[in-house]
Formats: sequence, C-alpha cells, structure tokens
Amino acid sequence: MSSDAPIGVFDSGVGGLTVAREIMRQLPEERMVYFGDTARLPYGSKSRDTITRFVRQIIAFLKTRQVKAIVFACNTASAYALDTIEKEIDLPIIGVVRPGARTAVKATKNKKIGVIATDATINSGLYTEFIQAIDPEIQVYSKACPLFVPLVEEGLTHDFVTEEIARRYLSRFKEDEIDTLILGCTHYPLLRSLIGRLMGNEVRLVNPAYETAIALREMLADKGIAAWPGTIAEGHHEFFVSDGAEKFRVFANSIMPQTIPETKVINIEKF
Amino acid sequence: MSSDAPIGVFDSGVGGLTVAREIMRQLPEERMVYFGDTARLPYGSKSRDTITRFVRQIIAFLKTRQVKAIVFACNTASAYALDTIEKEIDLPIIGVVRPGARTAVKATKNKKIGVIATDATINSGLYTEFIQAIDPEIQVYSKACPLFVPLVEEGLTHDFVTEEIARRYLSRFKEDEIDTLILGCTHYPLLRSLIGRLMGNEVRLVNPAYETAIALREMLADKGIAAWPGTIAEGHHEFFVSDGAEKFRVFANSIMPQTIPETKVINIEKF
Repeated sequence: MSSDAPIGVFDSGVGGLTVAREIMRQLPEERMVYFGDTARLPYGSKSRDTITRFVRQIIAFLKTRQVKAIVFACNTASAYALDTIEKEIDLPIIGVVRPGARTAVKATKNKKIGVIATDATINSGLYTEFIQAIDPEIQVYSKACPLFVPLVEEGLTHDFVTEEIARRYLSRFKEDEIDTLILGCTHYPLLRSLIGRLMGNEVRLVNPAYETAIALREMLADKGIAAWPGTIAEGHHEFFVSDGAEKFRVFANSIMPQTIPETKVINIEKF
Repeated sequence: MSSDAPIGVFDSGVGGLTVAREIMRQLPEERMVYFGDTARLPYGSKSRDTITRFVRQIIAFLKTRQVKAIVFACNTASAYALDTIEKEIDLPIIGVVRPGARTAVKATKNKKIGVIATDATINSGLYTEFIQAIDPEIQVYSKACPLFVPLVEEGLTHDFVTEEIARRYLSRFKEDEIDTLILGCTHYPLLRSLIGRLMGNEVRLVNPAYETAIALREMLADKGIAAWPGTIAEGHHEFFVSDGAEKFRVFANSIMPQTIPETKVINIEKF
C-alpha cells in the first residue's frame, strides 16, 4: 500500500467531521477521503446488523478510492461493526471508541468515568468493556442522549431547551461523582461548552477525536504507510455523501479549519 | 387484481401507523401489508432523489406481497415521490397530501390555512399547490417542524420542552390568523392535544389520515377491487420493517386498536 494513498474516514453524516478536523490539525500531510452516509443517518437508533451492512458498503466504496487505512469516525459504527469488519478486510482500521476509552482511563483519578453516547453505542457496552479491560477497578456510568444530535442539527447549540435536556441527561452523574466524562458521539463536542458548564470544572471532558488522530499517526508509522513529512494535503481531500451534498458542504464549512469546495453524492447502496 | 388481495401501506417508520389505524377503523374488511423503513428513517430531511429511490424499492417489495393498491402513508414520500411513481406502476396508489389538502379547503372559512410538516414536505410546496388548485384565493402559511419527530420518538409528548418548541414553531400562525391547520406529518397527530391547546379552539386541526381512508375506500370502489363486505381482516394484517422489529412492535401496540403479534425484518436494499 502506497504511503501517498489517502485515508478513508467515514461517519453517518456530519459528526465525523469533528474527527476529520482533528486529523487535519495533527496530520496535515495526510490526504483524506471522507464519506458521510446522509441518506441513511442517523445510525445511533439502529441495530447492529443494519449498521454492519451499511459499514460493509462504505468500506467497499472507500476501497474504490484506493485508501491505505480507514477511520471509523462514528462511535456507533465503531461500537457495532469494527470488530466484525476487522476480520473481513486487509486494511488497517481504527475506531474512536478504543482511543476514547484509553484517554479516559489516563484522565480519571477517582476511577469513576461517565459515558454519554447514542442508544446504540451505550447498548453495545463497548466503552465499559474497553475501560475495564485496562483497569477493572474503574466504575463506568453510561447515559444515552438521543436528543442531542437533532438539537445540534437544528442549530440549538446555545439554547435553553438544549440546556434543559442536557440537565436531565447529565444530572445522574452528580450522584455518581464521576471526574471524567467521555463525549461518546461525534456530534457532542459541538455541545462541549454547555456540557462543561453543567458538569463543572472538576470533571474532565474527553473528546475521542483528539486521541484517535494520535492513534492513527502511530498506526500509520507502525505499518510504514505514513505520508512523507512536508507533503501538503490541504486542498486535496475529497468529500462524498449519500444525500444532500450542498447541506453537508455548508455545515462542513461552518466547523472545518479548511474550505471544503465540493462534495459529491454517491449511491452507497450500489456498493 | 383480486378484491381479496391486501393493501400495501408504507412509511419511513412508525408515523404511518396513524394512517394504518384509520384504515383499520374505516375499512375493517381490508387486509393490510404495512412496511416501515426504519433502517433509513427519517425521510423528512432527505432529498427528492433519495426518497424516490427508497420508495421504488418499497413498491418493488410490496408487489412481491401481491398488493392490489398502495397507500403512501408518509407525507414526505407523498410530496416527493408519488407523481413520479404513479407514471411507473400499474397499481392504484394514493398519498396523504391530496386528501389532507382537500379536507383543509373544505374546513377553512377565512381562506387562511396553515401547514406544519417536515422540511422536505414544506420544501416541495405540494400542500400549497394542491390547495390553490382547488381555490386560488386561499392563503397558505407553512412551517417546517423538524424537532417534533425526535421529541415524539423520545416519548416527550407531554413535556414542557416539547411545549416550548411547539410554541416557537406555531407562534407565527397567530399573526397569519389561520383558521385551519394541517398536521402534515404522520407523527404530528400524536401531538394533537398540545397543538390544539396552543392554537386555540377557533383553529380546526386537519389530520390527513382520516380523509385518506375515505379516499382509499372510494378508489377501491371505483376500481372494483374493494374487499367483500363482512370479510374480517383483523389478525390478517402483516407488518414489515427494515430494522428494529421489536422496537416497532412495541410502539405499534401502544397506539394501534388491534394487537400486532409479529413484525418481520427485510433487507429493503435488495429490492
């Protein structure tokens, strides 16, 4: 596999862009092919079988773009499909759950970690499993927050309705006395300031995107497929979606450090 | 086409059950095959091309069940795909938009009608088109309400957060002085009491499901394919989804007048 091949990055929609922007920041020499499954989003309320079938199609598409590695920039896909897909393909792949779990374990002092995510990610139990595989003494407290994604997509990031909903979702963590909270859905970093305010300064918020980019760098180095230092990838990334290219592009340009000039639509069900 | 064949009814998910239950009430002799596209829901934020492609697959599936007629029990699918599909198939089909528009025209006295629906249905402009085709003097005021579906699905039907969101969505209709409001998404009848309270007694709420069942009866009679009077269809309906059969079944049993004993999952992308 050539070191100048791009990295495939995918999500159910725009959320994975919070991972893509972290990769752009930390690995500016790596070219990316991003895919957002906007025709079939959201993933967080759907079943393991369905998510796995969707991910197989996405992998097949990314392979046609000759990617050298794949990032599951979606917690639900990482939680439900990564293990299965890993056995089926010969490309190095990485998800966001394991790096997120690792960071949280490093961060906690009182061994009490909270996880907020979609129904699917919480039901998978994977954050708990990965955390306790590193340190079985750690207590993990989980809470699905299904309204966060529609509220963010409706633009209500700074709104008292979102604050009220967040207060309900997060109140239980006060009793649990967690000192670390994993933002286990790629949309949630967009609510970081609100969640931080409600949880207070003493609780460390973990955004798995940051650690995922570090883990990606290590994986590329291990396999000897990192891009040459000094390569400039900016302007050479490609963005694909399964629906609504223009809406995606507008949202992407509102949160990305680089301009996304174009997004193409593909029929993912053909793969 | 045999009169004892079933009627195909579909929606992006559970919302179309509000139409299915109206058909059960008004046409108790008609057998139904219901399909909910739960793997790809919601439809309301997606594009015309994508919705049309999804609907073609659903029609192909329903045809394998030997249906004699098809009900688009989804406003978005009716607004975006019905016209196109009508030219492609030889089965009688009916949507919810035209019957809803017709009822509203009959109901309004001051010739000011409001429509609330998904982004897609509002963007299609089809309610306005159908209403003004009957009476060009009628003013139509539209408002997309994208958070209603996730709030209903989260079970917050009676919650002050939903009331606050509804208040924002509906406030503009006060100035418009509408006397009739179309509930242009099949989930919205589940918020009927809240919407009714906010709009006041002087505003008539139109649920297109009721009139759709009437229009279906007429269509079946016209084509000579109505079931024999006295036939008992109860217990012979079939329910299919593309994901999450158990979750669907539980929701269905919470709102349907008859018990849904079983729901089967199919891979709709194969059709």
